[in-house]
Amino acid sequence: MIIIIQCKDQVGLVADISRILSSAKLNIISMREHVDKAENRFFMRLEVDGMADEVALEAQMRGVLPDGALIQVNPVPDKKIVVMVTKEYHCLADILIRNSFGTLGANVLCVIGNHDVLKKICDRFDIPFFLIPYHEDKAVSEREIIAKIQSYNPDYVVLAKFMRILSPAFVANFPNRVINIHHSFLPAFAGANPYKQAFERGVKLIGATAHFVTDDLDEGPIIAQQIIPVNHSYTAADMVKSGKEIETAVLAKALRLVLNDRVFVYRNKTVVFE
Amino acid sequence: MIIIIQCKDQVGLVADISRILSSAKLNIISMREHVDKAENRFFMRLEVDGMADEVALEAQMRGVLPDGALIQVNPVPDKKIVVMVTKEYHCLADILIRNSFGTLGANVLCVIGNHDVLKKICDRFDIPFFLIPYHEDKAVSEREIIAKIQSYNPDYVVLAKFMRILSPAFVANFPNRVINIHHSFLPAFAGANPYKQAFERGVKLIGATAHFVTDDLDEGPIIAQQIIPVNHSYTAADMVKSGKEIETAVLAKALRLVLNDRVFVYRNKTVVFE
Amino acid sequence: MIIIIQCKDQVGLVADISRILSSAKLNIISMREHVDKAENRFFMRLEVDGMADEVALEAQMRGVLPDGALIQVNPVPDKKIVVMVTKEYHCLADILIRNSFGTLGANVLCVIGNHDVLKKICDRFDIPFFLIPYHEDKAVSEREIIAKIQSYNPDYVVLAKFMRILSPAFVANFPNRVINIHHSFLPAFAGANPYKQAFERGVKLIGATAHFVTDDLDEGPIIAQQIIPVNHSYTAADMVKSGKEIETAVLAKALRLVLNDRVFVYRNKTVVFE
Amino acid sequence: MIIIIQCKDQVGLVADISRILSSAKLNIISMREHVDKAENRFFMRLEVDGMADEVALEAQMRGVLPDGALIQVNPVPDKKIVVMVTKEYHCLADILIRNSFGTLGANVLCVIGNHDVLKKICDRFDIPFFLIPYHEDKAVSEREIIAKIQSYNPDYVVLAKFMRILSPAFVANFPNRVINIHHSFLPAFAGANPYKQAFERGVKLIGATAHFVTDDLDEGPIIAQQIIPVNHSYTAADMVKSGKEIETAVLAKALRLVLNDRVFVYRNKTVVFE
Repeated sequence: MIIIIQCKDQVGLVADISRILSSAKLNIISMREHVDKAENRFFMRLEVDGMADEVALEAQMRGVLPDGALIQVNPVPDKKIVVMVTKEYHCLADILIRNSFGTLGANVLCVIGNHDVLKKICDRFDIPFFLIPYHEDKAVSEREIIAKIQSYNPDYVVLAKFMRILSPAFVANFPNRVINIHHSFLPAFAGANPYKQAFERGVKLIGATAHFVTDDLDEGPIIAQQIIPVNHSYTAADMVKSGKEIETAVLAKALRLVLNDRVFVYRNKTVVFE
Repeated sequence: MIIIIQCKDQVGLVADISRILSSAKLNIISMREHVDKAENRFFMRLEVDGMADEVALEAQMRGVLPDGALIQVNPVPDKKIVVMVTKEYHCLADILIRNSFGTLGANVLCVIGNHDVLKKICDRFDIPFFLIPYHEDKAVSEREIIAKIQSYNPDYVVLAKFMRILSPAFVANFPNRVINIHHSFLPAFAGANPYKQAFERGVKLIGATAHFVTDDLDEGPIIAQQIIPVNHSYTAADMVKSGKEIETAVLAKALRLVLNDRVFVYRNKTVVFE
Repeated sequence: MIIIIQCKDQVGLVADISRILSSAKLNIISMREHVDKAENRFFMRLEVDGMADEVALEAQMRGVLPDGALIQVNPVPDKKIVVMVTKEYHCLADILIRNSFGTLGANVLCVIGNHDVLKKICDRFDIPFFLIPYHEDKAVSEREIIAKIQSYNPDYVVLAKFMRILSPAFVANFPNRVINIHHSFLPAFAGANPYKQAFERGVKLIGATAHFVTDDLDEGPIIAQQIIPVNHSYTAADMVKSGKEIETAVLAKALRLVLNDRVFVYRNKTVVFE
Repeated sequence: MIIIIQCKDQVGLVADISRILSSAKLNIISMREHVDKAENRFFMRLEVDGMADEVALEAQMRGVLPDGALIQVNPVPDKKIVVMVTKEYHCLADILIRNSFGTLGANVLCVIGNHDVLKKICDRFDIPFFLIPYHEDKAVSEREIIAKIQSYNPDYVVLAKFMRILSPAFVANFPNRVINIHHSFLPAFAGANPYKQAFERGVKLIGATAHFVTDDLDEGPIIAQQIIPVNHSYTAADMVKSGKEIETAVLAKALRLVLNDRVFVYRNKTVVFE
């Protein structure tokens, strides 16, 4: 069983929680906890061995936790996701492969693209692909996308190189449930064309950042980041090419963490129990 | 306060330990635990806020832990170390600098060298340097070194590029208390001249390994390892030169972890709560 | 145009080669050269701009190079490869994806498996899959595999987690043309079950190595290596899982380098112009 | 001999240069070249074996290079540097150690501090330390610093955690000769308190950047950058502490490259032949 808890911090939380587990004859395999002192916030992820009534256990836990605590006993094991794409295949293909072999930790319900170039790879994997091109009125397109997503009722929406900026109205429908991969080590090179910016600045490393999407472009809580070294011999195009590898890896890592209930969000930061 | 515990695993350990802390009004800042299932072994490192009688607390803890448990409440905060060297300066100098600025987490009591080239740098830092050259009969030299070390009664002996193999008889005096830096990513290239071996094998990365010393050469529990990339343009001498940087960094990291009571040893492995 | 040269070293090689290019009005975009002094061996990779008769240029070059020089002007741009697999999908799937989107730098002609679990993923990508199970007499199976490979006449054979050891007789058919991915940072943990070995040794990093296959198991020239950090919380099974990511990445990198004519082999080492 | 060349690009440069070397019986050990196509700029670094009249060779070279070419045959092998510091010891100590053991590739002439806390470590290494505190009128202090530096006539000025912003007037005295270490992966977190910024943004990696100083704060040509991973458990103070290791390493790398004549500056970028 997996148990995740987020609440105000107070003395004795660990003792109270572990006492409940102990009296339920549940053996702790792994206990990860973090206290954000500045925010006075407590985060915990437990893996326990044994059998227990989930509802009863959650109720017992809630009894010792402060008001407003977030607690989940055995969060949905196989999450459902919808993937949004534009033209680049690398992140999507990686997700489809893992989905196909049952190692994604989620089921891909469908793919939504604003271009049709990635329809074929979805067909190869028998995943529905919906083309929703952008109209002049962006709000119309977004409403269409929202309707499609909601018809599938996913746990998360994954922007696998979706190259359009989503409006706050869109994001409001899926708070802390939209995951984006941005092709720079944020906060460097937010916005458009990060590799061109990186090339012009002459940096010696480029990166990628997976984050939850909030109202502010590229300002949401960061889940994972990585970099690779570059040098003077890289053109902006070379950076784009090399960057794809790291984008794929970072998004894969972020999904593994999120889908495995290892990521907690509080305000604009994440707690990640890797 | 820091509390470290190592014992046989059993159900309820976390609950029992955290209950004691809670009733002593000690607030858990950080709790790290690991269960080695194969060995049925429990490891825990706690940082807690508050005031308590150390002896009473340890006794209380011992009451709930299985027989043979290792427990330390507030292990010695500033450890004492003796450093052994041959001719290479990089690891020693790094240690002396940190020692001098109070950031090593230990006090360097003295340095023992089997050559005198590093006497001057010790003089610069007002650290006693003892030259104990190797005699034909290695056992004689080792006895001299052991006597010198024991006269200082250090917590750890650090081999900062000490290029002689210590006998089991030597090591037996300081079980799990001798830390070595080996210039390869063990178990690759154990023994003499690892960079030459690496060059001849044509590897694309070289590394360094910090480990506790046991009877078997380069076979002791590993504390930390790191690598750097190399390529065809590196001669064996270039590898030696580049390797020094990583040797220094890995030994520094291992010392930081050990001196901060973050490393547990069980059989031939370590548990490291970074 | 790409030009690759390997020969005995002698004074004036660069001058002679660049003079020929200059008089042919070919502009050097990139010139990479390496001299292995120990072996007195010269390696060069050129990218040049402009138009020239390939055969004439090669003949001119040969005129200034020492006897026995290897020279290729515009080596085959799109190599052909055959992939061999057992049951693990990650490396194969990565290759099929890149092949499908035209970014592999090669065409996958077919896949040969000694189990049939990866037939389906090949079908999805319209790549022929041949099941050649191992007989009691391994030599029979190998002859069958060799015949199948030769019927496709590939430039390279890629062992994408092919879990059988190939005999020297097999390898002799494809000298320096069989590329393997081994799941450890060689020379550590050669042979079977490297992750189990790594787990038992308690290493703090695990890795993967792509290399050309020679008669000696896991002893061939290394093309690329990479590592990821692990710690005490990893079981051997966790290492297997995490290792797959690095295996995929390292094999992809090695293929990119080899298929782009950036890898030279001499005796048991490679020169890699990244 | 080392030869470095920077000039406008034109066809035949490599041929012309290597012909001159060849007729002077100089054997090329290593030739590194780069053409910046966007800027039509040619960069080359040569290591050659053999004996030749430096002045004559340079004149011959200049004869075949375009007007305005920068060429140096055997640039000063042991550079002279002045180091500027505030209170943090780690970068300075690393430089002093290397200087003391003759592995810096430069001689440290003196250290200038705007506080006196680092006088003692300079005394230990017999390096003159000058305290030049900041007056209310910053220009006065800068004039004093400039006078002191100029009295030593160094090749480079190294800001080893000098925590004051230098005015354009200061920088104008030493174009492309002032090297700074900034404690972030620029362009992220330029300006003051980068670790605090990093903590507040919740990034998963922190870094350091060594760069030449220009008029624009933290905007000069980047020489080297590196990062280390961090996570939610790091306070801003922890980041400061961990960051010191990477700052030291990145500045050491940048100095090794610059002092070894491996770094070329053109406009706001560097070409680095590692």
